[in-house]
Amino acid sequence: MNSLTDPGLQAALPLYQAVAAELERAMAAGSLRVGDRLPSVRQLCAQHGVSVSTATLAYRWLENRALVEARPKSGYFVAACKTVLPEPELDTRMGSAGFVEPSDLRREFLYSADDPLALPPLYPAPAPARSLLPEAKLRHLMARANRLHPEYASRPNAVGSSALRQEVARRSMQAGLSLRPEEILLTNGGTGALFLALRTVAQAGATIALESPTYYMLLEIIKGLGMKSLEIPTHPRHGISLEALDFATQTPGVVSACVVIPNFHNPLGSLMPKENKKQLVALAAQRGFTLIETDIYGDAYFGDERPVVLKSFDANDDVILCSAVTKTVAPGYRVGWMVPGRHLKTATSLGMQAAITSPLLQQEVMAEFLCDGGYDHHLRRLRASLKSQAQQLSDAVTRYFPPGCKLSRPQGGLMLWIELPVSVDSRRLYDQARREHIGLAPGASFSCSQRYNHFIRLHHGQPWTAKLEANIKRLGELVEQQLPR
Amino acid sequence: MNSLTDPGLQAALPLYQAVAAELERAMAAGSLRVGDRLPSVRQLCAQHGVSVSTATLAYRWLENRALVEARPKSGYFVAACKTVLPEPELDTRMGSAGFVEPSDLRREFLYSADDPLALPPLYPAPAPARSLLPEAKLRHLMARANRLHPEYASRPNAVGSSALRQEVARRSMQAGLSLRPEEILLTNGGTGALFLALRTVAQAGATIALESPTYYMLLEIIKGLGMKSLEIPTHPRHGISLEALDFATQTPGVVSACVVIPNFHNPLGSLMPKENKKQLVALAAQRGFTLIETDIYGDAYFGDERPVVLKSFDANDDVILCSAVTKTVAPGYRVGWMVPGRHLKTATSLGMQAAITSPLLQQEVMAEFLCDGGYDHHLRRLRASLKSQAQQLSDAVTRYFPPGCKLSRPQGGLMLWIELPVSVDSRRLYDQARREHIGLAPGASFSCSQRYNHFIRLHHGQPWTAKLEANIKRLGELVEQQLPR
Repeated sequence: MNSLTDPGLQAALPLYQAVAAELERAMAAGSLRVGDRLPSVRQLCAQHGVSVSTATLAYRWLENRALVEARPKSGYFVAACKTVLPEPELDTRMGSAGFVEPSDLRREFLYSADDPLALPPLYPAPAPARSLLPEAKLRHLMARANRLHPEYASRPNAVGSSALRQEVARRSMQAGLSLRPEEILLTNGGTGALFLALRTVAQAGATIALESPTYYMLLEIIKGLGMKSLEIPTHPRHGISLEALDFATQTPGVVSACVVIPNFHNPLGSLMPKENKKQLVALAAQRGFTLIETDIYGDAYFGDERPVVLKSFDANDDVILCSAVTKTVAPGYRVGWMVPGRHLKTATSLGMQAAITSPLLQQEVMAEFLCDGGYDHHLRRLRASLKSQAQQLSDAVTRYFPPGCKLSRPQGGLMLWIELPVSVDSRRLYDQARREHIGLAPGASFSCSQRYNHFIRLHHGQPWTAKLEANIKRLGELVEQQLPR
Repeated sequence: MNSLTDPGLQAALPLYQAVAAELERAMAAGSLRVGDRLPSVRQLCAQHGVSVSTATLAYRWLENRALVEARPKSGYFVAACKTVLPEPELDTRMGSAGFVEPSDLRREFLYSADDPLALPPLYPAPAPARSLLPEAKLRHLMARANRLHPEYASRPNAVGSSALRQEVARRSMQAGLSLRPEEILLTNGGTGALFLALRTVAQAGATIALESPTYYMLLEIIKGLGMKSLEIPTHPRHGISLEALDFATQTPGVVSACVVIPNFHNPLGSLMPKENKKQLVALAAQRGFTLIETDIYGDAYFGDERPVVLKSFDANDDVILCSAVTKTVAPGYRVGWMVPGRHLKTATSLGMQAAITSPLLQQEVMAEFLCDGGYDHHLRRLRASLKSQAQQLSDAVTRYFPPGCKLSRPQGGLMLWIELPVSVDSRRLYDQARREHIGLAPGASFSCSQRYNHFIRLHHGQPWTAKLEANIKRLGELVEQQLPR
């Protein structure tokens, strides 16, 4: 029996909604899957014995609810995301500055996570999959550099490649900067830059403001340097709360520095609006603390425009910009840099003492890659992949995770931040998933408070596969198992 | 007129000494040069009309004064060193622990010295000349690794090459150690290891005992970490004075750590006798401070045997060994390591935060080089070259520097330590020499006291050439110009 002839349904719904409900059931049952083409309006009329306007209304109804999408001149298709999970919200609770306590979880996650079989990967430093990185091109450039410059092996390298500093200066125009190569200090990856930046502007005992949640390694660095961390509420879409930071820094000298990831925050994926960036720089100048910004995800934007860095608004030359190509080109090269502004002299001395330079060979290869246009071509492809993977992972989470989850809307970068129902212990989930080779970062690692214990971070650096989908589905089941019955 | 017939000479000297004086004049005039074969005993008899026993006595007299050397079955040759400069002596003055003051000279020397024309090189990190390093072999291994493993570019590398740790463990047997690969932490060169070792065992404000004079970068590192340095008198041939260290560490807890370079100290070239090493480790254990030893020159011994490391006597597993291949294979690779003993867990965490790893590619290439026997072959050649270059540089200093200089007797390593007459200002000499492309390290850089202001360090990493000889001669003239007239 055709369901449309069911008197109950017909009585309850307008005809177009009844037609739509029929299609919706087929999608839920899996007989229509994401991306499938739906019957044309004419076919729908014929199948259900309805008018063209009723069939059109049915599709509009489904389209409004984001269940189908219209593609010009192609018809209607099952849309990627059947329902839309809400976003996590700004958690305005603010703690006080404190020394980071040792966290066994963070330690375990950072220092022993290594499972080549894990999918998504378990490795604590998220990076795009190998297949998305320009390995072949780099291999070619490396072979040439090795052939032409065997002396790179023998030459002690204190200040690093001037060609690379030239290229970094040239490219930084896209992030709103105008730099001279001499203003750039090459470092051992983005972590090396961040470590050096903190040492440059703060001493043991100093208080460092940072986003909450934040990159776990930053918490570890601050702890290792004997500094205190002060977590500032951070909006999942717009970044650090300026009101909260304003409040926390009212007493001058209390906060020595503030570390932020304005462009595609780890783990939130948030992007600070331009106006907020301007205000943040002004606030720092007014209150006398140094801003340290990490821009390693800045080139991985999903939108139309490369976002600018805080330093582009930095009239006092006090902001320290840290960046690297570890997230977009070559995680294994360890090529990073910092723009220390007026802190250049101090940073140079402290950097040499800590042996922050990476080998000249990789620096020169990277300079060539950035110079000959390969980077832009690569980035276009990488960004498209990351954007689509983010969408696929979001869809899968939406599809397979139990009700009550919330999901970030990253506008770039490599990760999703997921709020699970409050009864879920992400620490336990991490252990369970790990045993089944499913990699996730437990929320508790991203803060010294306990507030993210029911959050997880997932990478979307891997191309979508049936195996990955199965793992996300399985992860949804593991989450479900933790719900009260 | 034959000088031997000069009645004045004949009256003043026994006949054999007169014959010897004649030969000595020829050497001084340059008509007999270092390495030239001298007339046979029979020829000497004929030339001077003396008996075989007189001619033999003349050669013995010259040999006793180290002016000629007898080579079995080959006869007599002009010896390398016509006179022997005395060694610098142990300076027993001891200061008190203090925060290192900023030294403009040290800063200038460390952070701006870069002159590709300088000979000896001006670069602050002494390294063997390119021609002495295995560039061709490394290029070959690098090309292969790059061809077979393009994924090294893409793979984040947190713990580094296990193959390299395996090789380092294997080779460390020669230095008296028995290690498992897991006990080794790979670092960004020897400086990276030293920096990490200090952070691992001491906090800001702690006092670090060290040799006086010592490696200037160590003074900078200690300053950068906000620690105090305590200079311990150090013997130019036998290393740190155990008596002085014993005295300085009598109050428990006053000294947190002691950093030493027991094998071919920088700048002294001293080698601690085995017995002293044993006593030093015992003293540290008894007094409760941690020993940090740098062994980057240990493979560059001139004698028959690779000296052992302090850690080989370390029953408590408290000594931290730092080493690297930057001085003997590939300064540009930045491949170093540390053996932190019981401090492994702390060092691992702190190291990750500071991004201490070097890229996997160079680590794997180095593992191959160490594994396939290339290293031993290379080291034999390198050691022979360094030994002969040290001798040639010593000879030239002896020949061209004014009276009153003293010269170290390095038993390995890459440098000579020269005490100039006390009126010479090595800071001025450094400036003058630099303008003429002659590289030296001014003594004032090696201490926070003023006591080495009339000392200089010279590299002997370069093969001997006429140009180098001319530069050393010129340097002697510059020294002479500073003497009171």
